[in-house]
Amino acid sequence: MAARVVDLRADTVTKPTEAMRAAMAAADVRDGDPTARRFEAEMAELMGKEAALFVPSGTMANLVSVLAHCDVRGSEVILGDDSHIHLYENGGIATIGGVHPRPVRSNPDGTMDIDRIVVSGGRCLSVEYADKVGEIARSRGLKLHIDGARIFNASVALGVPVDRLVKAADSVSVCLSKGLGAPVGSVIVGSKAFIDKAKFLRKTLGGGMRQVGVLCAAAHVAVRDTVGKLADDHRRAKSLAEGLNKIEQFIVDSASVETNMVFFDIVDSRISSYKLCQILEKRNVLANPRSLKSVSGIDMILCSQKAVEELLMGGTESEHLADGATKNSYGY
Amino acid sequence: MAARVVDLRADTVTKPTEAMRAAMAAADVRDGDPTARRFEAEMAELMGKEAALFVPSGTMANLVSVLAHCDVRGSEVILGDDSHIHLYENGGIATIGGVHPRPVRSNPDGTMDIDRIVVSGGRCLSVEYADKVGEIARSRGLKLHIDGARIFNASVALGVPVDRLVKAADSVSVCLSKGLGAPVGSVIVGSKAFIDKAKFLRKTLGGGMRQVGVLCAAAHVAVRDTVGKLADDHRRAKSLAEGLNKIEQFIVDSASVETNMVFFDIVDSRISSYKLCQILEKRNVLANPRSLKSVSGIDMILCSQKAVEELLMGGTESEHLADGATKNSYGY
Amino acid sequence: MAARVVDLRADTVTKPTEAMRAAMAAADVRDGDPTARRFEAEMAELMGKEAALFVPSGTMANLVSVLAHCDVRGSEVILGDDSHIHLYENGGIATIGGVHPRPVRSNPDGTMDIDRIVVSGGRCLSVEYADKVGEIARSRGLKLHIDGARIFNASVALGVPVDRLVKAADSVSVCLSKGLGAPVGSVIVGSKAFIDKAKFLRKTLGGGMRQVGVLCAAAHVAVRDTVGKLADDHRRAKSLAEGLNKIEQFIVDSASVETNMVFFDIVDSRISSYKLCQILEKRNVLANPRSLKSVSGIDMILCSQKAVEELLMGGTESEHLADGATKNSYGY
Amino acid sequence: MAARVVDLRADTVTKPTEAMRAAMAAADVRDGDPTARRFEAEMAELMGKEAALFVPSGTMANLVSVLAHCDVRGSEVILGDDSHIHLYENGGIATIGGVHPRPVRSNPDGTMDIDRIVVSGGRCLSVEYADKVGEIARSRGLKLHIDGARIFNASVALGVPVDRLVKAADSVSVCLSKGLGAPVGSVIVGSKAFIDKAKFLRKTLGGGMRQVGVLCAAAHVAVRDTVGKLADDHRRAKSLAEGLNKIEQFIVDSASVETNMVFFDIVDSRISSYKLCQILEKRNVLANPRSLKSVSGIDMILCSQKAVEELLMGGTESEHLADGATKNSYGY
Repeated sequence: MAARVVDLRADTVTKPTEAMRAAMAAADVRDGDPTARRFEAEMAELMGKEAALFVPSGTMANLVSVLAHCDVRGSEVILGDDSHIHLYENGGIATIGGVHPRPVRSNPDGTMDIDRIVVSGGRCLSVEYADKVGEIARSRGLKLHIDGARIFNASVALGVPVDRLVKAADSVSVCLSKGLGAPVGSVIVGSKAFIDKAKFLRKTLGGGMRQVGVLCAAAHVAVRDTVGKLADDHRRAKSLAEGLNKIEQFIVDSASVETNMVFFDIVDSRISSYKLCQILEKRNVLANPRSLKSVSGIDMILCSQKAVEELLMGGTESEHLADGATKNSYGY
Repeated sequence: MAARVVDLRADTVTKPTEAMRAAMAAADVRDGDPTARRFEAEMAELMGKEAALFVPSGTMANLVSVLAHCDVRGSEVILGDDSHIHLYENGGIATIGGVHPRPVRSNPDGTMDIDRIVVSGGRCLSVEYADKVGEIARSRGLKLHIDGARIFNASVALGVPVDRLVKAADSVSVCLSKGLGAPVGSVIVGSKAFIDKAKFLRKTLGGGMRQVGVLCAAAHVAVRDTVGKLADDHRRAKSLAEGLNKIEQFIVDSASVETNMVFFDIVDSRISSYKLCQILEKRNVLANPRSLKSVSGIDMILCSQKAVEELLMGGTESEHLADGATKNSYGY
Repeated sequence: MAARVVDLRADTVTKPTEAMRAAMAAADVRDGDPTARRFEAEMAELMGKEAALFVPSGTMANLVSVLAHCDVRGSEVILGDDSHIHLYENGGIATIGGVHPRPVRSNPDGTMDIDRIVVSGGRCLSVEYADKVGEIARSRGLKLHIDGARIFNASVALGVPVDRLVKAADSVSVCLSKGLGAPVGSVIVGSKAFIDKAKFLRKTLGGGMRQVGVLCAAAHVAVRDTVGKLADDHRRAKSLAEGLNKIEQFIVDSASVETNMVFFDIVDSRISSYKLCQILEKRNVLANPRSLKSVSGIDMILCSQKAVEELLMGGTESEHLADGATKNSYGY
Repeated sequence: MAARVVDLRADTVTKPTEAMRAAMAAADVRDGDPTARRFEAEMAELMGKEAALFVPSGTMANLVSVLAHCDVRGSEVILGDDSHIHLYENGGIATIGGVHPRPVRSNPDGTMDIDRIVVSGGRCLSVEYADKVGEIARSRGLKLHIDGARIFNASVALGVPVDRLVKAADSVSVCLSKGLGAPVGSVIVGSKAFIDKAKFLRKTLGGGMRQVGVLCAAAHVAVRDTVGKLADDHRRAKSLAEGLNKIEQFIVDSASVETNMVFFDIVDSRISSYKLCQILEKRNVLANPRSLKSVSGIDMILCSQKAVEELLMGGTESEHLADGATKNSYGY
């Protein structure tokens, strides 16, 4: 029997559920790709925007959105200095799109951010804050794009419908392959005119795919089945945080655990996060070191202190926490 | 019972076969995506190059390839003035990549082309020609990229192994979702260093997809199962051409039907290609008008004059020619 | 005493006249640079457009004009395939501006050109033709830019006022340092809105210069003093062409000598254009070989056959034809 | 008799001296432009680098330098978040060059800056600091560009030869039309290979000018005559700062007055900097408000408290401080 593996690394490491696989296999991709069209219509309605567009990745979702808004040469974008767009997307808006970034310092509470307003490192910003930034943008003739990679997590955590949360935004990108567990893809939503521009840009960037209904079918299932189970994920993350806090060597800022991410610091100088991750891996617990002294864990579900101590001490009771997409099929 | 539809429009309008759907559903997309890695290795070997990269579309395959070769600002590319890159990819190499195109006139026999050397509008160029262009490129320190969207069709038609055909090329893009019938994707092949650059660019453009093994699984089946049946496609296309030529009002340049495309002219001034397509559609035969006086038909299989006349006259014997991907499942 | 040199290479090799030098030395460059402002106003009026902008070079004049018209990402420009913009400006519109060029074949009589409509290789196109192209552009919502590097030569040769000649154009670039002989600079003219965009782009490209009145002062003199003397230049060029035609080994297409350029072919297989230029240089006659068999000569003023033969045979009577800017000070 | 005007606005508002005007008028701009070539050679030697290139502006100097170093697509540049390149050059490195900026916070003492290392807002950084940053850059395979707009001011203030100051830099841009008073132009210096790339880029951007020797002649005089007089400028600025500090309503950070710039704060709530500038202008003293409460003054020479009070109180003894370029001709 294969050993159970607890994978706490990131909600980007997922496997499609059986329902998603079945949907892909059965997808209707006749001429015009009705599955893709239907999924886009669903997403537009869900997000409260006129139109939606399926794209291959979150990076393209953001890139296409920024370029669609900044279609005139010499445009600039204000964004958080630790935002995903600024740090982790190869500088594409500048190197590919010629858009000049003007990074603004991100405060720990996120209030200076523009693009990471709603969810930032697992933190949720209030709908009031999003509205206020939208107001500032509108009053200056600027467009507001929300990188809503985990917008459904924020919606669930705040108890605010997702369309209300992004009401102030001119465009939103939503990742389907992170917490929602679809195998591939993101969606961007906005006005009809915006989506028309985005469609042209998607083609230019090479993101127009042929019978993409096979992917949209899985994404449809992800949205339908997974959102309702995110609250469980968040509860488990909080539970893990509490368990970690009971261990002397670890500190978690409990207030920061609002959704599915747990970051903790190690206060024992004898152990680095890299070393800890190695120890954990031997016990079939996978986690990512963020820096020398912290470890990120996502979507942990066995969060009693006992379980965690066992994990660290080599106990054998650790459950199969499974791949992200099956957050909804743990059977808890 | 649903009417049978004969779809002659393009080999881009396909549906995945049952085998492809099953492969998608069963794809192993564990961490590291072994299905994608294995497929890329297969393609590299098949094409005789060091490495391969799966990308979401043919447009991205060409865009990434051109940008990887032209990584220094101020680079230029020589390409045919009716090449797909120049006419149908939104000018992405210039508008996104800042690469200056220097189009060269494409002769009817294709000999002035650089990038459309191997297959151009269903035509095949000889391996000698490809080698010669490669020699010219090398002697001037240029790189040769082949847009091999339908390179397998060329290989089959010429009876030359595909790796021999592209031997002179530094990079080749191969479309998986045209004649091969996979639902989504293209592959680029080249040296290890080229593919490393391409991988970075794919990420920059937003073409890096998460559990992309679900698509590679279908592509693997496409390559495995479909290539062997392309010869049948070509035979049927030739047969259709002959049938069309027997109809007084139509002219086909038989020499131009080397693979799976049939273009014919209408010599009857009373009927335009648009009108003809409308008539055909009422008889469940779908075709694309190219200009006022010609119609393109692809992958036709009922090619006796009788069948064609029946199609036009409303006969009822037309077979279900089916969607492109099922070229291999016609039951012949 | 220094040998007299006959410089027939190009009207880009000029020296400022004494009047220009005096104007530079005396230029009023107080705050706001009144000399520059006055010169731009003069040029706008002369060309019949709302506004004008001084830029450092003809390349920047064209680059700024194209980018100002094509300010939205994904724009394309139709231009002649042997136009200066396409061949001799480092592909800047694509590599720097991301504008996709769509070159159109230039016919020998220039009628397929868009951007070289008025003067092309010393040839003048009719005002009717310019108007017609302007009409086509307008009817399709396109902008017409004329690269009027030598627009004053065309105006003089056609006997059409320069503002009438460019009436159909949305923008025109005019070179001040070619036939007009100013040391540095070009001017672009167009609507107020166009020039506002151009000004921003000039700054972006680094073409905004501080006390640029020192250059505008010289340019003012160039326009004031030189235009009236271009007819002499053209007469001399024609005279040279006739002289060359009388020499058995040379052929000039007389019809092509409409302004200040003379291109001739050598029909004697024993002598290449490079060799001829070497021989000429020893006799203090400077000329540029265009290809193996032709030589370009510009602004020649001693055009009797005798003079030319003497030049070639080592005669000593050749006059000082002088640097371009002194076309107006030859003393004839 | 015209009223004397004290112009304290900026060292960018200058007029060429008589010597510069004479040099322009007499410039030898024969074929090959020997004046330009000689001036570039001079500057290369002065700065201790292999080669130099004259460009029309400081913006182009920086743009060309950044693009020459970042010639591969996807390059990034680390620069101060209040650097001129980041804030005042229209985002050209991104919008035109596709280079992704990574701004780093600039500390008040400048130590976090990379590109503003030597002179920042009139402040001088030590040669030790420049060397250290160069070392960091080299150890990571990065290139160091110094925006040395006022590098000669720094050299004079620090008493360190200019070539020693920029020894660690791979490239330096030097403004000729600021403190040095030339009418137009900047120079960039670096290795031969760097300057070759820069020359190509200058052409691409449209910064290649024809008989540019007329400008280089003035620049040569500026470097020859003005550098030796910068110490006087600095002494006067310090003197002005002291005078201002004696006025109750003003505060100057004396330590910040190292070269030719004086910034002071107004501590009287009844007067804004805009209002103060209006009052000053009526007394023929021109100054620029920086924000609501501070005024920048540059190159003031009448710096006794009495003179300043008189200026503000409407006294009549103010001297003609003259335009920037005549810093060397004040006769003090």
